Amino acid sequence: MLEYSEHPSNFEKKDTIQGNGKSRFYGMDIISVKQFRRQDLNIIFDVARDMRNIVERDGSLDLLKGKVLANLFYEPSTRTSSSFAAAVQRLGGNIIQINNVTFSSVSKGEELRDTIRTMESYADAIVLRHPEQGSANIAAQVCQKPIINAGDGIGEHPTQALLDMFTIVEELGGLDGLTVTMLGDLRYGRTIHSLAKLLALYDVKLHFVAPDLLRAPSDLVADLVENGMKPCKHVELASVMPDTDVLYVTRVQRERFEDQSAYEEVKESYVVNNDTMNMAKNRMIVMHPLPRVDEISREVDHDPRAAYFRQMEYGMFVRMALLALVFGKV
Amino acid sequence: MLEYSEHPSNFEKKDTIQGNGKSRFYGMDIISVKQFRRQDLNIIFDVARDMRNIVERDGSLDLLKGKVLANLFYEPSTRTSSSFAAAVQRLGGNIIQINNVTFSSVSKGEELRDTIRTMESYADAIVLRHPEQGSANIAAQVCQKPIINAGDGIGEHPTQALLDMFTIVEELGGLDGLTVTMLGDLRYGRTIHSLAKLLALYDVKLHFVAPDLLRAPSDLVADLVENGMKPCKHVELASVMPDTDVLYVTRVQRERFEDQSAYEEVKESYVVNNDTMNMAKNRMIVMHPLPRVDEISREVDHDPRAAYFRQMEYGMFVRMALLALVFGKV
Amino acid sequence: MLEYSEHPSNFEKKDTIQGNGKSRFYGMDIISVKQFRRQDLNIIFDVARDMRNIVERDGSLDLLKGKVLANLFYEPSTRTSSSFAAAVQRLGGNIIQINNVTFSSVSKGEELRDTIRTMESYADAIVLRHPEQGSANIAAQVCQKPIINAGDGIGEHPTQALLDMFTIVEELGGLDGLTVTMLGDLRYGRTIHSLAKLLALYDVKLHFVAPDLLRAPSDLVADLVENGMKPCKHVELASVMPDTDVLYVTRVQRERFEDQSAYEEVKESYVVNNDTMNMAKNRMIVMHPLPRVDEISREVDHDPRAAYFRQMEYGMFVRMALLALVFGKV
Repeated sequence: MLEYSEHPSNFEKKDTIQGNGKSRFYGMDIISVKQFRRQDLNIIFDVARDMRNIVERDGSLDLLKGKVLANLFYEPSTRTSSSFAAAVQRLGGNIIQINNVTFSSVSKGEELRDTIRTMESYADAIVLRHPEQGSANIAAQVCQKPIINAGDGIGEHPTQALLDMFTIVEELGGLDGLTVTMLGDLRYGRTIHSLAKLLALYDVKLHFVAPDLLRAPSDLVADLVENGMKPCKHVELASVMPDTDVLYVTRVQRERFEDQSAYEEVKESYVVNNDTMNMAKNRMIVMHPLPRVDEISREVDHDPRAAYFRQMEYGMFVRMALLALVFGKV
Repeated sequence: MLEYSEHPSNFEKKDTIQGNGKSRFYGMDIISVKQFRRQDLNIIFDVARDMRNIVERDGSLDLLKGKVLANLFYEPSTRTSSSFAAAVQRLGGNIIQINNVTFSSVSKGEELRDTIRTMESYADAIVLRHPEQGSANIAAQVCQKPIINAGDGIGEHPTQALLDMFTIVEELGGLDGLTVTMLGDLRYGRTIHSLAKLLALYDVKLHFVAPDLLRAPSDLVADLVENGMKPCKHVELASVMPDTDVLYVTRVQRERFEDQSAYEEVKESYVVNNDTMNMAKNRMIVMHPLPRVDEISREVDHDPRAAYFRQMEYGMFVRMALLALVFGKV
Repeated sequence: MLEYSEHPSNFEKKDTIQGNGKSRFYGMDIISVKQFRRQDLNIIFDVARDMRNIVERDGSLDLLKGKVLANLFYEPSTRTSSSFAAAVQRLGGNIIQINNVTFSSVSKGEELRDTIRTMESYADAIVLRHPEQGSANIAAQVCQKPIINAGDGIGEHPTQALLDMFTIVEELGGLDGLTVTMLGDLRYGRTIHSLAKLLALYDVKLHFVAPDLLRAPSDLVADLVENGMKPCKHVELASVMPDTDVLYVTRVQRERFEDQSAYEEVKESYVVNNDTMNMAKNRMIVMHPLPRVDEISREVDHDPRAAYFRQMEYGMFVRMALLALVFGKV
């Protein structure tokens, strides 16, 4: 059974609209990776796999005919927004796209609450991207219809983590027994944090490779340890590359360094190129949440182990699966 | 029969495309509340009620399959734009969303005329939001296809007034005999002006509660008096609250006051909170066009008489009804 | 047979996905007018004519049901973007609208490549508008799905040229034997350049009327001469107006002139008004890519020979035809 320890509001929403033979995902808010257990991921991945087959065969289906999804983006995100737009339309549903909503941050969520209540008058579910951590939770509390968190500041981006997991499963056949190496900015990357928490559900060995300034936060490490993981910290990639099944790359941004000479010193160590790939197994994958700048050289794009563009496509299937489940159509 | 005294262009458009058993709404521009008589409102509300039933049962219908609506917004309005987007899609039609069109105001409508003629090449009807009063009329003159005014500066916003009326009818069962109190900025609020004019079609008692600086304009009052209404002016809400069936709240903006001490003096009087509601009837409603800032305290949101979020939903049904009627599908 | 001398990438894309009885347009990138020969134009115009008939009768069709088109606009273009949005939706397909993508021009196309590869994960074809010449070619090289160039800086805008051609054919019954006069800024107008190149496929007499500063570029003239055309240069319109079948007007912009007195001297000569039209044949047309400012007086709008608004409508039919062909649905 799903547990919602961090999101009690979900209980009520489910209680109100469930009880008619629908799956436990029906009407659910998707706020945090903490909502999911292994059996939930299995369901999502099974449906995502079905979605992939259907899209590759027919392009789309009619599951969400007549449904309206609001894509409410308080900050731009071409990739995530387009992915949801494609997903709902390939399911036969409609989309209301709302970009660059202006808002006053002094309102402490009041304006967000009103906007959410307005949008739920029009739409059947709301995808929310908002620069402030916790905003998805605020939205879920006032909204009778499902909220899907598409990134709340430095908080969470659960659908990204789910698509990352699905990518690994589809590319490598499973998760247990894998060695996952996370590279780059492990301090500020919410993508990394969410993925690491989900990986803790499996028997995965985790390597953290980052410059001192951008190490994984201690509360993340504590959370992982509590869940049975022992992430190993490294400063250089070379030593762990030969054992790595999944190399998850994020960008080391110059702006994070006060001391520019410190940046210049480390930046080369966090670029993946063909030399890096020569150290790697034949069967492994390189992932990246995109957009990338130069932390993965273009030459790697031609390597069959470069999975970051396929990752985008898996993302659409995972979002189709989530929408179908949340709308109770599976 | 519909009269179009202020909009002779409608005659021609109707004449050209009507005469085939379609209702008198077929092909009509929706420019001003002055177009509507009681029997027109009854038709719109009947269709809106049908739309509500269908949406609550099925989510959507196929009435406008293959139709394309252009949502042409020269200034942002998340609420209105999303409402029309949801309405046309729930009717099975498609939308072209055009935001933040850049334009030169020195062109005196020339650029608008060209843009409208371009958009009518692509779409079957055009929803227009424009910062300049009279722009919807200009658009209707050059356009062979229906124009729906979604706000033209300090001019009109007829679909807002229609949804306000529908909200009252659905919440309170009718309009005749009601006491409607309009609170706040009655000088600049086009919402208030349009709604007051429509209420003049009914046997409604009107209270205007506003600070001196923000009183209803004299031409509005003259117009209402000419139509048999005798709006009563007040400075304080307390005295009229016990008799009020509909409290329509708008915001008193600090920027309207040159003398900030004058603002500080009055601002408290125009905030609706639980104390205000304690003075009110058990069966009455509080309305607001949204967005609100603090003119209605959040504590009132939990009061069942707070109708401002339901008002948004009624809005979608009214817009669905208007689109269905204008497209001749009812 | 289609030749793709300038776009070898097309060969591969076609080879991969063709060979199943589909037309030669199936899976094709639409990058440049140089891709088209007379027989290709005939096919496009035939399909566009069918589209027009179907839209006028039924409004839309279901040819692209389940397909998703990405409308990727790196710079705003209300007309072109709306035209494609209407086209794909009238074909029964869906659209993902992406406006104002932020990008760093120092990236020399790298960011574009990644964005294209992301969008092709979601969509079945991509319409691209980009400020940099050559960007559509870059996109086509990395994309497995069809790219439709909707303007790449001072490069090409092939669908505009195709709709211009279709307008002439529909309005005047054909192209051979016509006299086409191009007026205004012939130096910077990519519309003019693309159209002239396509006209070279036919037996057309070409007049270029422009101020000295804005003459057609010599490489364009050389290209035309090589293809058997002998464009005649003029400074004044009056002498050629009586023989003109198609007057194609573009704007002479003040900003193009360093010497403002030079601008003041010529500007009147490049305005089309009723006096200009009085010199023209009874059966001829005036075209303009829009938006216009004052290079065509508003009084001309009422002249039946003013074809520039009908031109927009032809544009939607041509884009519907291209989409149907590229998706292999004809």
